[in-house]
Amino acid sequence: MKPYTIDFDLLTGICKSGKVQPVQRRVSQMKMQFADPEAAQKAIDSGDPVLYEFSTLLNDEKKGTLAFGSTIIYPGKIGDEYYMTKGHFHTILDSAEVYYCLSGKGFMMMETPEGDVDLQEVHPGEALYVPGRWAHRSINHGTEPFVMLFVYPGDSGHDYGTIETKGYRKLVVERDGKPVMIDNPKWK
Amino acid sequence: MKPYTIDFDLLTGICKSGKVQPVQRRVSQMKMQFADPEAAQKAIDSGDPVLYEFSTLLNDEKKGTLAFGSTIIYPGKIGDEYYMTKGHFHTILDSAEVYYCLSGKGFMMMETPEGDVDLQEVHPGEALYVPGRWAHRSINHGTEPFVMLFVYPGDSGHDYGTIETKGYRKLVVERDGKPVMIDNPKWK
Repeated sequence: MKPYTIDFDLLTGICKSGKVQPVQRRVSQMKMQFADPEAAQKAIDSGDPVLYEFSTLLNDEKKGTLAFGSTIIYPGKIGDEYYMTKGHFHTILDSAEVYYCLSGKGFMMMETPEGDVDLQEVHPGEALYVPGRWAHRSINHGTEPFVMLFVYPGDSGHDYGTIETKGYRKLVVERDGKPVMIDNPKWK
Repeated sequence: MKPYTIDFDLLTGICKSGKVQPVQRRVSQMKMQFADPEAAQKAIDSGDPVLYEFSTLLNDEKKGTLAFGSTIIYPGKIGDEYYMTKGHFHTILDSAEVYYCLSGKGFMMMETPEGDVDLQEVHPGEALYVPGRWAHRSINHGTEPFVMLFVYPGDSGHDYGTIETKGYRKLVVERDGKPVMIDNPKWK
């Protein structure tokens, strides 16, 4: 494999050259993961907005390789819950991930299979280290797109199913205009 | 291990909070790696300037972890050879590395043990993927600090010795005000 370069705009995270195409996730693909499915249905009926998108260079997906790219979480709410990503464990659970925020602001909601929970706020010019074993979900509680670069081990894989089935233990919702972490009433 | 955030300035790459301390490399630590050791000695005698510095979060150095940080290569020349890093292979040779340029511009000089050579120019807002097996050295041929973030597998290790002993097959020097890649006359 040969070295290569690829552009990700310093502010928007967008690959303007088109060397990689973003994957978009809309409300309809995450309806049951929001605390208020009726609010989600209303959003779907009025245009099914894009919650977030990400552009990933997968490379070889073997040990020693790295996958990397950019992610953009758009601002908005479903009911009183902020736009967020699905979130995932890595299939090889011990795989870490590094994020670096280029613009906007947001949270990374993290939890381990044992039930440890951690919420980190991330701002432009801050890197976040997500150690192995921590499921992670990005949440935009700001008013601008929340843009981050990410890098993870190429062989780590993604386990979305565990989170889809069980949900996260905690949610971040807006109360009196401010983000608050609450227990997820639907957590199994 | 718990998640954490750390700041790296979006323009300068500097960790202003002091959560990580930079390691500096001066001309005296790389005298024999420049094509013109007399020019290097002259630079050492007149203050031994810092060629580059880097700040690394090593984390656990186990499989699945990631090490990351920022690197700043300062502008300047030793004779007609641009300021550059020592460069290294990874001890686990198949370990990749991702770079993302925040400011300045420069080259990544890369070569494999088999003798393949690749030179990539990197600008702000560009990521560079260095696959496993490619030794890599950063070179600043611009007039501003060349600033990049980097991420590599935590267990990859660094083999500086091979490059120190053999040198790189190619050098980047200035000819008529422009950077040119030439054969390294001292390569073994």
